[in-house]
Amino acid sequence: MMTDFDTEISKHDGFSISEQGNLLFEECSLEELAKIYGTPCYIYSENIIRRSCREYISALVEADIDYEVIYAGKAFLVQAFCKILAEEGFGLDASSGGEIYSALAAGFPAKRIYFHGNNKSEEEISFAIENNVGTIVIDNRNELESVNRIAGGKKCLINIMIRVTPGVDTHTHSKIRTGQLDSKFGFPISEMKDFFPEILSKENLIYKGLHCHIGSQLFETEPYFLAIEEMVQLIKIIFKEYQTKTEYLSLGGGLGVKYTDRDKPVSIKDFVQQIIKKVKKAFHQNDLPLPIVIMEPGRSIVAEAGITLYTVGALKEIRGIKKYLIVDGGMADNPRPSLYSAQYKAIIVNKYNQESTEEVSVAGKYCESGDILIQNIRLPQAEAGDLLMFLTTGAYQYSMASNYNGVPRPPVVLVNKGKDGLMVRRETYQYLNQNQVFPEWLAHK
Amino acid sequence: MMTDFDTEISKHDGFSISEQGNLLFEECSLEELAKIYGTPCYIYSENIIRRSCREYISALVEADIDYEVIYAGKAFLVQAFCKILAEEGFGLDASSGGEIYSALAAGFPAKRIYFHGNNKSEEEISFAIENNVGTIVIDNRNELESVNRIAGGKKCLINIMIRVTPGVDTHTHSKIRTGQLDSKFGFPISEMKDFFPEILSKENLIYKGLHCHIGSQLFETEPYFLAIEEMVQLIKIIFKEYQTKTEYLSLGGGLGVKYTDRDKPVSIKDFVQQIIKKVKKAFHQNDLPLPIVIMEPGRSIVAEAGITLYTVGALKEIRGIKKYLIVDGGMADNPRPSLYSAQYKAIIVNKYNQESTEEVSVAGKYCESGDILIQNIRLPQAEAGDLLMFLTTGAYQYSMASNYNGVPRPPVVLVNKGKDGLMVRRETYQYLNQNQVFPEWLAHK
Repeated sequence: MMTDFDTEISKHDGFSISEQGNLLFEECSLEELAKIYGTPCYIYSENIIRRSCREYISALVEADIDYEVIYAGKAFLVQAFCKILAEEGFGLDASSGGEIYSALAAGFPAKRIYFHGNNKSEEEISFAIENNVGTIVIDNRNELESVNRIAGGKKCLINIMIRVTPGVDTHTHSKIRTGQLDSKFGFPISEMKDFFPEILSKENLIYKGLHCHIGSQLFETEPYFLAIEEMVQLIKIIFKEYQTKTEYLSLGGGLGVKYTDRDKPVSIKDFVQQIIKKVKKAFHQNDLPLPIVIMEPGRSIVAEAGITLYTVGALKEIRGIKKYLIVDGGMADNPRPSLYSAQYKAIIVNKYNQESTEEVSVAGKYCESGDILIQNIRLPQAEAGDLLMFLTTGAYQYSMASNYNGVPRPPVVLVNKGKDGLMVRRETYQYLNQNQVFPEWLAHK
Repeated sequence: MMTDFDTEISKHDGFSISEQGNLLFEECSLEELAKIYGTPCYIYSENIIRRSCREYISALVEADIDYEVIYAGKAFLVQAFCKILAEEGFGLDASSGGEIYSALAAGFPAKRIYFHGNNKSEEEISFAIENNVGTIVIDNRNELESVNRIAGGKKCLINIMIRVTPGVDTHTHSKIRTGQLDSKFGFPISEMKDFFPEILSKENLIYKGLHCHIGSQLFETEPYFLAIEEMVQLIKIIFKEYQTKTEYLSLGGGLGVKYTDRDKPVSIKDFVQQIIKKVKKAFHQNDLPLPIVIMEPGRSIVAEAGITLYTVGALKEIRGIKKYLIVDGGMADNPRPSLYSAQYKAIIVNKYNQESTEEVSVAGKYCESGDILIQNIRLPQAEAGDLLMFLTTGAYQYSMASNYNGVPRPPVVLVNKGKDGLMVRRETYQYLNQNQVFPEWLAHK
């Protein structure tokens, strides 16, 4: 008999079985964690996070190139996690003032923050400058003006990089493709040559380099190679025509992760090796000095480090059509299936050693037909009270979670070698109502 | 020359132009509101909300039938709004403990609350019973057991309705279709006959009636007619075979609203008139006494009462391909374009009297390519600093909003006859970090 442990969990990291026969994640009993923190609950492995961080860094060290690795905060950003990132020597790609705030509150070094985003507000730019954020990545002409103006007002010199869209097409969901020419992000690469003098003319901005990001959840390195070739040509033009050195080249993020068996990601090590080999070759061929290469992983650091626990609340069988297994969370804590038709693997924690014998769909508790987390998955015979675990839920779930239906967001727990601790408390009804007020003319009725 | 006012705004309610030439919403200057509350900002017309409520009630009174109108909280629910609903004599369809909490905090009468949802937790059921919520709508077998058990433990009798899926197919986005047979919601109508004795056997539950909901954003009444026919047959069986009267029949919500010119909704008055005429006819033909009819509008009460203000932060033109107008909000405050490919109309407030001369796409500020709010709309020549207004944003925007990219959610403002007041304050970075903690072993590093 092949159990769910054999066919599924054994392919994922962090899991083991206790002497008593309980399923453990980083030596913590999952059933115990559900009792302590309730469900739904996001759980992260500190070990997998740190290991992924170290895989990037050791591969870059081995590749023998100057580098920075900056984590893409939009995938998942909480203060305790920022502390881990800082310890691992990572920088941070922050996409808003809010992400910068959280990082600074956790003691993250401001100089290692890169401020990204295609429409930074004046308040956000001021906030970043006042807090000595290391680099601002300029996304468009309006921003070039406003960052220069605000920096001028504060009599500061600001390190900037320029985001460029290299016009490379990739094979991924159209909503998370960013490198093609028709993109809301960055300067079209074809226009950069003529535009560059304007960048140089800004008296409060110091040009440090170029950034490009070609997409997310990618399984091939080929699109990166094409982007590198495009970027090298631009760097050459900038060097030859404007005598300006491009110190930093950021290749963005995008390395895919394994949500289900269909996903076959390249390993972090191979990914880095192939990319750097290509960078070296391209710069060498063009007689250019090597830049400091920046990588911006998000999903590949946290996705597989995270799981989500749900309790099965109800089962609904429509004779001859389908069986629904309904859990106590759904589209508000995991909007990816609704947004991207994302696919997930799940197992019943308290039945991990049973065989999957029936096909079900996993539905959420939200008042919306589209709130289906998994369409058709084979699981052991389920019943109300079962503990359902989703795998690979560390990226773009907590960060995209809403309070739809007035439901408080779940807690976020960190586990490591048998220890467990909260990173984010579960929201309460009181918390969700803190900002509610009454217009004066209604208040006194 | 046809201005945006002529071609667009004049078709929507609540707008006028001041003597000084400013565009007003309920006699409040939109540019002034943007200055007071900042952008992005959700703004609701109290007048349109109350008028829509009254249209339902007066149409039902005119139709001469016993009724209840209960608002579907999931569309938009804040405390100040609950107060308005209560004043208008509405009940509330609450989809969670959180929605019940907000309503009660606003002084909404508990007896007028109907507790919906396909997976109510034990805590939510207890919370509802302890707070004397009027009716619990039972969605599945597990819930029938748990509500009966919890009510028994508290020695209460609980009014219940039963949610049934009548198997009617409707023409709307598949994610918001709920009445077809393959649905996570409710009991398949074909199984109700055999299941009914089990409902009657529950000693702590009082059967009051049936509920069905066939979908959302519907423009035809025909699917409702089919549902009514199905429900009448079931009510007849329940009456003949189990000598049980079905006191209440809820037909759910679903009436469509006008997002763009393509949407041609039936008026509330015609909708109610047609539905009640059909109910009367169907019950008469089957020799059944008329039930108390429940209607559950959500979107049709609030969608057209709400607008959203954004400030244009940047423009990006990709020569020969597209022009992006980038605003200071996006998919986190309005996830409907990403989730449902929903379409919106927008106008530039400070250029309402100009002609639309160029085609642009409106993009948000979130770090994601899919964060496009409108694909291709004709607008006057835009520039950074312009105030962009989205129409018909009152439903499923604030209620589905997230903090993606760490961005605080916008405030919600109520306007009426020149007065403006906050219903929900803008979130702050501090507020968003309130629940952040450090696991003990990380805290002391």
